[in-house]
Amino acid sequence: MKASRTLEIDSTAWLDKDVTRASVLALAPRLDGLRQQIRAWRSGTPPSFYHLPFRDDSRTIAVLGAQIAQRFQRTLVFGIGGSSLGGETLVRCLGSRRHPLRFFDNIDPATLAELDDVDWGTSALLVVSKSGQTAETLAQFLGLLPLLERKLGPRLPEHVRCITEDPQGALAAVGRELGLDILQHPAVGGRFSALSIVGLLPAAIAGVDIGALLAGARDMAEQCGVEDMASNPAFYQAGVQYLHARQGRSVCVFMPYADRLRPLGMWYRQLWAESLGKRDGHGQARGLTPALAMGVTDQHSQLQLYLHGPDDKQFTLLADPGLAAHGARIPDRFAALPAVSPLVGHTVGELLLAEFRATRETLSRHGRPNRVVHLNTRDPAAIGALMFQLEMETVAMAALLGVDPFDQPAVEEGKRLAREYLNK
Amino acid sequence: MKASRTLEIDSTAWLDKDVTRASVLALAPRLDGLRQQIRAWRSGTPPSFYHLPFRDDSRTIAVLGAQIAQRFQRTLVFGIGGSSLGGETLVRCLGSRRHPLRFFDNIDPATLAELDDVDWGTSALLVVSKSGQTAETLAQFLGLLPLLERKLGPRLPEHVRCITEDPQGALAAVGRELGLDILQHPAVGGRFSALSIVGLLPAAIAGVDIGALLAGARDMAEQCGVEDMASNPAFYQAGVQYLHARQGRSVCVFMPYADRLRPLGMWYRQLWAESLGKRDGHGQARGLTPALAMGVTDQHSQLQLYLHGPDDKQFTLLADPGLAAHGARIPDRFAALPAVSPLVGHTVGELLLAEFRATRETLSRHGRPNRVVHLNTRDPAAIGALMFQLEMETVAMAALLGVDPFDQPAVEEGKRLAREYLNK
Repeated sequence: MKASRTLEIDSTAWLDKDVTRASVLALAPRLDGLRQQIRAWRSGTPPSFYHLPFRDDSRTIAVLGAQIAQRFQRTLVFGIGGSSLGGETLVRCLGSRRHPLRFFDNIDPATLAELDDVDWGTSALLVVSKSGQTAETLAQFLGLLPLLERKLGPRLPEHVRCITEDPQGALAAVGRELGLDILQHPAVGGRFSALSIVGLLPAAIAGVDIGALLAGARDMAEQCGVEDMASNPAFYQAGVQYLHARQGRSVCVFMPYADRLRPLGMWYRQLWAESLGKRDGHGQARGLTPALAMGVTDQHSQLQLYLHGPDDKQFTLLADPGLAAHGARIPDRFAALPAVSPLVGHTVGELLLAEFRATRETLSRHGRPNRVVHLNTRDPAAIGALMFQLEMETVAMAALLGVDPFDQPAVEEGKRLAREYLNK
Repeated sequence: MKASRTLEIDSTAWLDKDVTRASVLALAPRLDGLRQQIRAWRSGTPPSFYHLPFRDDSRTIAVLGAQIAQRFQRTLVFGIGGSSLGGETLVRCLGSRRHPLRFFDNIDPATLAELDDVDWGTSALLVVSKSGQTAETLAQFLGLLPLLERKLGPRLPEHVRCITEDPQGALAAVGRELGLDILQHPAVGGRFSALSIVGLLPAAIAGVDIGALLAGARDMAEQCGVEDMASNPAFYQAGVQYLHARQGRSVCVFMPYADRLRPLGMWYRQLWAESLGKRDGHGQARGLTPALAMGVTDQHSQLQLYLHGPDDKQFTLLADPGLAAHGARIPDRFAALPAVSPLVGHTVGELLLAEFRATRETLSRHGRPNRVVHLNTRDPAAIGALMFQLEMETVAMAALLGVDPFDQPAVEEGKRLAREYLNK
């Protein structure tokens, strides 16, 4: 299936005798509510992730990003969950290394101690929290603030920017008090915010062509707006996964064959888990478990389980055919050795792709349902299209499971308890 | 349960009405074969992971590691699966940063391109492959070799060492031809080799006290040699997990609250998946799916699924009480803000531990079975004990599932196919 101009999805081992094309298409009526929702989104309201690729603020963000990149030598980002994963995905996948960005997404004191070595005079800091109330992000920032003020004095506002939605939130209040720029987080949940300023500003700082990224996402948004189940890649792909889950394949393995896509896997893992893992209207626990694996590395770690373990998984593999042209070519000096001779004359990229094909074929022979996304991992339009498709697949899967993809009711209790424990 | 002098396991939310202490102890006879096996190991033969903490080569390895660390400014390690995960775990968790080590465990050409920037005159390289036939490791090394020879000339053998078992393997042959030191990989499977030279040499280069590490592992080996189910921590803990799996909890979440334990999670993930994911004597697919999560970060990503999603998971949380004393203390400047006031006066480490306690309590209230390993993550003896316990738990779980923990029959087909594809 040509999912967009930039993505191709190979579905040859995606269906089986229980999960047929006809059974997937028969799910169409269950997406009627979502179709209506998409019509509402397309007419412009309420605000949603659907609108992000169509917003006209990308020029402004690109200019700001370029200014930050020019003025500073590196950028640090404080944020957790949706406030870091989208940005890190775009930066690691598409960014140049000239201006390094470092994402602090945890509060381990040992990791945060690395902040002591930062040359703050040449560094920018972004502090990101949608609600502005996130304990971890506030702790990171407020814990560092005395040092920052000592080092930067009145120049603090040149170096530090906040991204937050609620002007009444703590982050906005702190930012105002310190005279910082406060950039507007859109009214879109964190895990769906990658294509907003939350992801786009770090990407722009890293030199990513965010216009091309959004163009790819828009292209996919058009296709995911199609009402026909067979032609809407998100509807169709969600339908297949839903039926596999009904067959007991509740673990969704996401396995890119490219190191630069590792953060994309982490981003998808939050999107899929936090959007779907919840109770449906009848109080029943629903949800699928995302599992991130890396090709080829995890062939030496997880593949044995995938092939001979329980048939409880479905697989999304991602591969970049362009890698064949890259990497050192194996010289013929040791060609007499049986373990070396098959490698001779091939690039390392060719070996990676041969292993990808072999793994995929082995999974198929063992009846493990899999799809392959072929894409140019350096093409912003392809990444934009892929991220949008995965978002829309998530929303379509939520419709099939009967859950609300946009809330996260279960995590409040832990936040409240943590505050209690601190107060004791 | 005091699992050793260095580990404490809090099991208060580990059992439930279906998985009781009595039902765990009733599994004892099913471990008779393993008891016999352990007696054989204790009497010295055949070689196995059980012997590694008792070998007397750790002084030699420590001396070699110190020499490499002194002579070079950094060390690169080529290896994949068991040839990298153990070493990376020990280095990241316990090593100093003075001598950086970098593990290359994939063949993505974009990542390997970073090798072009290495100052080889001040760098050491370890090439690790148990069989000596690993395509990825051979490709990494042979692809780099022309550049290495250009840069180093006759000094190549000072910089490069191999670790391999089979003197007939390709890596040994290449090493001999190049005049390299070839260090002996023990006759122990890669995923059980962390406490051999494979893990110990990188650890020693990073300045880890490998004597203390092995002492901790020996301490645990003694306890895991006890025949009584209730007093053998590995037997008992494997029994609990086995019974939870029988209740449909087939995903084993491993969630450390310390960034330095992330590679330990990746090491455990291979150990658990590749040892257990296979067919039993009746041809039935067995195995449990490991899932690595990071505290606190994944509270903002996976916790919603853990709490409100299907009851198909069991949890191992790891926490270091010592972190409370670390990290910046939140100043009282913004104490008037409701989101800030609970944080004021606390260290970032205290916040991390409060969130850990809250998450653990929330999991327990939702009936999600969990155990907590309390340990000092900077103590080599604790890490040695923990790794040994996890290895023995894996072996005990294999006995309960009726599978061989030491083979990996499913992955050969893919390796063969990859060679075929290359030859086409």
